[in-house]
Amino acid sequence: MPNSVRIALDAMGGDHGPQVIAAGAALALAKRPDLEFLMFGDEALVAPVLAAHPRLAARTKLIHSAVSIRMDDQPSQAIRKGRRTSSMWMAIDAVKRGEADAAVSAGNTGALMAMSKICLHTMKGVERPALAARWPTARGQSVVLDLGASIGADAEHLVALSVMGAAMARILLGIDRPSVGLLNVGVEEIKGIEEVKAAGRMLREADFAALDYRGFVEGDDIGAGTVDVVVTEGFTGNIALKTAEGTAKQIGAYLKSAMGSSLMSRIGYLFARGAFAQLKEKMDPRRSNGAVFLGLEGIVVKSHGGADALSFSVAIDVGYEVVRQQLLSQIGELIAQAHATLAQNLADAAAAAANPTIELQARGAS
Amino acid sequence: MPNSVRIALDAMGGDHGPQVIAAGAALALAKRPDLEFLMFGDEALVAPVLAAHPRLAARTKLIHSAVSIRMDDQPSQAIRKGRRTSSMWMAIDAVKRGEADAAVSAGNTGALMAMSKICLHTMKGVERPALAARWPTARGQSVVLDLGASIGADAEHLVALSVMGAAMARILLGIDRPSVGLLNVGVEEIKGIEEVKAAGRMLREADFAALDYRGFVEGDDIGAGTVDVVVTEGFTGNIALKTAEGTAKQIGAYLKSAMGSSLMSRIGYLFARGAFAQLKEKMDPRRSNGAVFLGLEGIVVKSHGGADALSFSVAIDVGYEVVRQQLLSQIGELIAQAHATLAQNLADAAAAAANPTIELQARGAS
Repeated sequence: MPNSVRIALDAMGGDHGPQVIAAGAALALAKRPDLEFLMFGDEALVAPVLAAHPRLAARTKLIHSAVSIRMDDQPSQAIRKGRRTSSMWMAIDAVKRGEADAAVSAGNTGALMAMSKICLHTMKGVERPALAARWPTARGQSVVLDLGASIGADAEHLVALSVMGAAMARILLGIDRPSVGLLNVGVEEIKGIEEVKAAGRMLREADFAALDYRGFVEGDDIGAGTVDVVVTEGFTGNIALKTAEGTAKQIGAYLKSAMGSSLMSRIGYLFARGAFAQLKEKMDPRRSNGAVFLGLEGIVVKSHGGADALSFSVAIDVGYEVVRQQLLSQIGELIAQAHATLAQNLADAAAAAANPTIELQARGAS
Repeated sequence: MPNSVRIALDAMGGDHGPQVIAAGAALALAKRPDLEFLMFGDEALVAPVLAAHPRLAARTKLIHSAVSIRMDDQPSQAIRKGRRTSSMWMAIDAVKRGEADAAVSAGNTGALMAMSKICLHTMKGVERPALAARWPTARGQSVVLDLGASIGADAEHLVALSVMGAAMARILLGIDRPSVGLLNVGVEEIKGIEEVKAAGRMLREADFAALDYRGFVEGDDIGAGTVDVVVTEGFTGNIALKTAEGTAKQIGAYLKSAMGSSLMSRIGYLFARGAFAQLKEKMDPRRSNGAVFLGLEGIVVKSHGGADALSFSVAIDVGYEVVRQQLLSQIGELIAQAHATLAQNLADAAAAAANPTIELQARGAS
């Protein structure tokens, strides 16, 4: 079956266990009949669940794993107890061994990140992995990274993030040459961290064919959808993501309390039910589930821990798309191009510095 | 008039000019009759506006300034053209010279920050200034800092921010011993920057009487109101603030479009008008206008540039409260206490290290 997309599932990951994982996989399979699954988990628990989805069972190989990583395990604990033996590790390892094209887990983020790094290693030209996800915006969706895989970033890493994010936006958002912005602060005087400024210069000079660098963006540009790809290091990215989630939850609570505050508002709510359903769908985080670890020699997709079947199927969908559209080789090419372009620019600058007269003559002649 | 609170106003700052500044001051004065104002601005423009508010005019001294800082001036430009001569500088300088108790400006943030630093200098024991503001939460309001005055922070500066933020929460939120959290990322394995971890240890060991340190908080804890004071360095703080603003705007736009999407939803909107008005008020950024530059030898309050009269009056109110409740001396005392406590803890640790047997005996005896 060379044309199927093979997804390794950590059946024990997530808040709701194998039922939801299997139901999500069944939903994904109904949409993409060319999916195949490897499910890793406690056979006694997973086999009966799988039996309830005969079409899924026909496309799934269940592999027993005695160890499950808990949602509150520390990454170091998880590695100690689950290296090689846990359902999470085995799903990632299936990607490494070429038995699956991507792994999807709704398990503990820290553990998944640690295991993915140890098991898969980083790609050539990428220093550290990043976590990238789609972010719903006023215009549609953008890709934001790094959402917390690595803390801090030098200019080269921010350029690598830009390139990887652009490849992901091309695949998941279908934009040929995505616009890219570096997240920065708006106060002119202190205009950002040195690394961000340097990355901006590098992106402008490199002028990559695969992305349209638009300069700095601010926090409110994320929700506005000003650019297709928003790039920042993992500390800031994680805090931006959580802050936005907290704000959405806060406004949702305000809205709920306001709509229930009087008889008139409750009547109004009944009339506007359809509109509220529409709003809820727009704000539904399930629609953008599925964050991808970028920069590793293999695809690992992180689903929200609290994902339901629909939401988990969306995460599988992300895995499917990035495999089908060959995210890894796209990133590999772009990273190589980026290094070549930056090296060429550096060489040009060095040559210009060594031959100032030639440079001046050339300028005078133009 | 020893009991009045004297506010220096930059009458030329903000998007809407002197009309709004004067109208805001008139509103504030109606609420606080013990206010007095020094207004700095172009006399030809400000005098007629002031004449329209006779009660305000009676409590205001207008001082001519020929130079206005534009909203899009770079801070360095602003300093070059407006040092000593601009309405913004003159308002800050009035604080320095003891002629006013606080300055309030709706002008260019970068310029205001640069001028405040140059004119007022930092307090003893505070390395760099911070920008602190109230943040509406699901529980009420919290104080968040630094919103962008300085980029990066070592552990000592994060401790100073905690102490200053607690003093501001005590005054503006009326909480005797505010709870304080350090903003951090939630992924266990990489649990934050070294500086944040070190600051956490210092705050826990110091156990300040003036604040209740609760450990790390994440981005979504801001909107939830988990703690009264959220502490982070200025890059992350600025991005969190703008991201939350962007998310609120985005949801507002979704909501508006959903409510206008059908006849039924429009009818529903009419019934629920009161509820929407209530929601709008809850989300109204005007109610939390007025960010304070902390850590300087003087009070400078930054109003939103787009503030209307009501919103600007809220920023004046912030200035009034922090003056009346002596924020500067509260901060001064707390910073001195903090340094003493940390020094004592350091000395104890050194003594314990020098006398390990005594330490062990004492432990054995207890």
